Amino acid sequence: MEVEVLSIGDELLIGQTVNTNAAWMGERLESQGWHVARCVTIPDEREVMLEAIRQAESRAELVLITGGLGPTRDDITKHVLCDYYGTSLVRNPGVEARIVSWFERRGREVLQVNRDQALLPEACVVLDNPLGTASGMWFDREGGVTVSMPGVPYEMEHIMSEGVIPRMRSVLEANGRSPRRAHRSLLTMGTGESQLAVRIEDLETGWLSKGIKLAYLPSPGSVRIRLTAEGEAVGELDAAHAQVCSRLQDYVVTKNGETVVQALADLWKKEGWTLSVAESCTGGGLGAALVASPGASQYFLGGVQSYSNQAKSELLGVPPEWISEHGAVSEPVARAMAEGAKSALHAHFGVGITGIAGPEGGSDQKPVGTVFIACSGPNGTQCEVHHFGRDRTRNLGMTIRAACRLILEVGRSNSIVMNSGAKGVVDSL
Amino acid sequence: MEVEVLSIGDELLIGQTVNTNAAWMGERLESQGWHVARCVTIPDEREVMLEAIRQAESRAELVLITGGLGPTRDDITKHVLCDYYGTSLVRNPGVEARIVSWFERRGREVLQVNRDQALLPEACVVLDNPLGTASGMWFDREGGVTVSMPGVPYEMEHIMSEGVIPRMRSVLEANGRSPRRAHRSLLTMGTGESQLAVRIEDLETGWLSKGIKLAYLPSPGSVRIRLTAEGEAVGELDAAHAQVCSRLQDYVVTKNGETVVQALADLWKKEGWTLSVAESCTGGGLGAALVASPGASQYFLGGVQSYSNQAKSELLGVPPEWISEHGAVSEPVARAMAEGAKSALHAHFGVGITGIAGPEGGSDQKPVGTVFIACSGPNGTQCEVHHFGRDRTRNLGMTIRAACRLILEVGRSNSIVMNSGAKGVVDSL
Repeated sequence: MEVEVLSIGDELLIGQTVNTNAAWMGERLESQGWHVARCVTIPDEREVMLEAIRQAESRAELVLITGGLGPTRDDITKHVLCDYYGTSLVRNPGVEARIVSWFERRGREVLQVNRDQALLPEACVVLDNPLGTASGMWFDREGGVTVSMPGVPYEMEHIMSEGVIPRMRSVLEANGRSPRRAHRSLLTMGTGESQLAVRIEDLETGWLSKGIKLAYLPSPGSVRIRLTAEGEAVGELDAAHAQVCSRLQDYVVTKNGETVVQALADLWKKEGWTLSVAESCTGGGLGAALVASPGASQYFLGGVQSYSNQAKSELLGVPPEWISEHGAVSEPVARAMAEGAKSALHAHFGVGITGIAGPEGGSDQKPVGTVFIACSGPNGTQCEVHHFGRDRTRNLGMTIRAACRLILEVGRSNSIVMNSGAKGVVDSL
Repeated sequence: MEVEVLSIGDELLIGQTVNTNAAWMGERLESQGWHVARCVTIPDEREVMLEAIRQAESRAELVLITGGLGPTRDDITKHVLCDYYGTSLVRNPGVEARIVSWFERRGREVLQVNRDQALLPEACVVLDNPLGTASGMWFDREGGVTVSMPGVPYEMEHIMSEGVIPRMRSVLEANGRSPRRAHRSLLTMGTGESQLAVRIEDLETGWLSKGIKLAYLPSPGSVRIRLTAEGEAVGELDAAHAQVCSRLQDYVVTKNGETVVQALADLWKKEGWTLSVAESCTGGGLGAALVASPGASQYFLGGVQSYSNQAKSELLGVPPEWISEHGAVSEPVARAMAEGAKSALHAHFGVGITGIAGPEGGSDQKPVGTVFIACSGPNGTQCEVHHFGRDRTRNLGMTIRAACRLILEVGRSNSIVMNSGAKGVVDSL
């Protein structure tokens, strides 16, 4: 099924807001086997909107509109849709009651403009939005469906997940158009998609004839591989997945496609280990990535954001002479930070990160993008040096992902040591 | 001048890549007084591209195309442009020499596909790309200009800044045309857009007749207000901006619309202050938000990610009995964390954050979403309690934004104290 996304809002065009909604929808719809054929961003202008909706509906079976549903005057999507579909606004008492209680729970006064968000086109099916005051609107039309949703990402995401996707799936099922379909995925790190593709080219060719498709989803530093089977082929998916895991074993980080953070959290919880961090250039970003998932307190004890050299020495015990001799961005300092974090937080494992994120601070020997990451466990300390690029934001993201991968690797090799009867990690503390 | 942005790439449509280029271009072009009227994202498909270029050129004077210029088979933009403009590829020796030296400097082999990136349309002006191997291509056409650039953000940004914008400005100047559009924005926190709108409704009505438009751009926890003037009205924009700042003064956080992090970084650098953090539930996210901007080392010393209670006591000096008596999520603990961070890092200011991010850990008295944030400066410690919602991700984001706002507020009142001749912050340390 072809989908077109229409994002409405001047803030997107003048670059005040990055359009993350389009990417979120693209990813989510792809996982349903639906295909986003085009994304168009237009201003909150009546004539432009009317023409863009007409064009999108002429091309796509499902048109998803976001934005322009706020209570203020610049938000005109609802009115434009009424004109377009030849319908008018009617007050929806259920929605109004929900809006009033939404404000009451927050101890805020309900204004008339807020109540008026319950004025909704008569011709639409209202999709609940428990996270905000603008409802989703589902319009059945000849040849397809058009849905209007608020532009606030978490509100849109909720309406998509709870309203649009299940409802659209029912429509397709009712028309006998929803084939049995299944996915498996795995996460790789350490090489690019073209290298991976070469290694499994022959497998892929064989599967294609059976109805199993392969997709490479690269992010900075990792490639997720997704296998998709339809109909009969679903029964062969597990065998295909096992084949690719075995063929690519040097690069596979997680076999079920979970993120590296999920995998390390699962391992640490299972083994009953604890983890601590010492972050210089990332300023706390690794810790933030770990606590983004619920239940992090079961294994994450915390750490030290040692942005200054004094913090490195006083809170982590890095000898000041090592900093002056080797530089704050160096292997000895990264190792000392990891060991310092382990001991200061009384953890089984400690991580140290020190690098030059840029754009300033680079030198010939240590250009911008140089990052040392160390992970210290009961069986010693491992340290890696990375040379990322010139972009600060990308360097910080790559550093956090590389650190998570190193932690997972060190943890896994400790598990093996433990399970083979050698000195266990917990005993050694 | 009307601009249209055409982003080419399957990776954008399936959500593998967020289209940050469109936002960057929108912001940069607006600052020139040029107006991005539409952004369209399409796949690497010949027919779709031809039709989209034709449509864009029929609407906009400047068409900016990004993506599809890589060396691999799926990158077809160059060929499509040749067909579209009826021209053919010729080898550019200067570009080829640059590509060869680009690979040599990196110690990598130059493949034929890389050399072939020097094959460029005869009809275009080549725009240099010193950061990569795909050149920019400038096509003069009837009624305007179309430019094709690589999709890699920093390469596109360089070509835009050094090639497209200066060249386009010369074209417009040669035709005696100057920008007739300007913006002002301000950032508010503490109330919703509808409340803000009601307070300035009468102003807005008056401005509209003069050609000044108002837009509300809400994010979780804040609302950015943007004023836009065209033509004659540009001269009245500053007065309108001052009016809205004064009318909404209780909620205005930054008068020039910069982010709270930018504003606090500027203030701290200007005053020569230092800042440290103690983060529990956010796990390092506040520090990461501060170091996301270059130059953070001028004021940010670091902090302690005190996720565990032991870390709160041992590294920050929070009395363990306060934790058992009041709970780890409490005002006394937040205050002690802020003061502990200040003293452990030898900073002028310290921040303490402790809360229940969810989904577990809430109680009747302290439900999920309860967060205490304290900021300690030379003139004492201020503490706030917040009651956010049920969503962990949102709670963490709201906490970081609220903390930045509190820090900025405490910093500003300290500036006032200093400037009024009372005991200065720096002297007091």
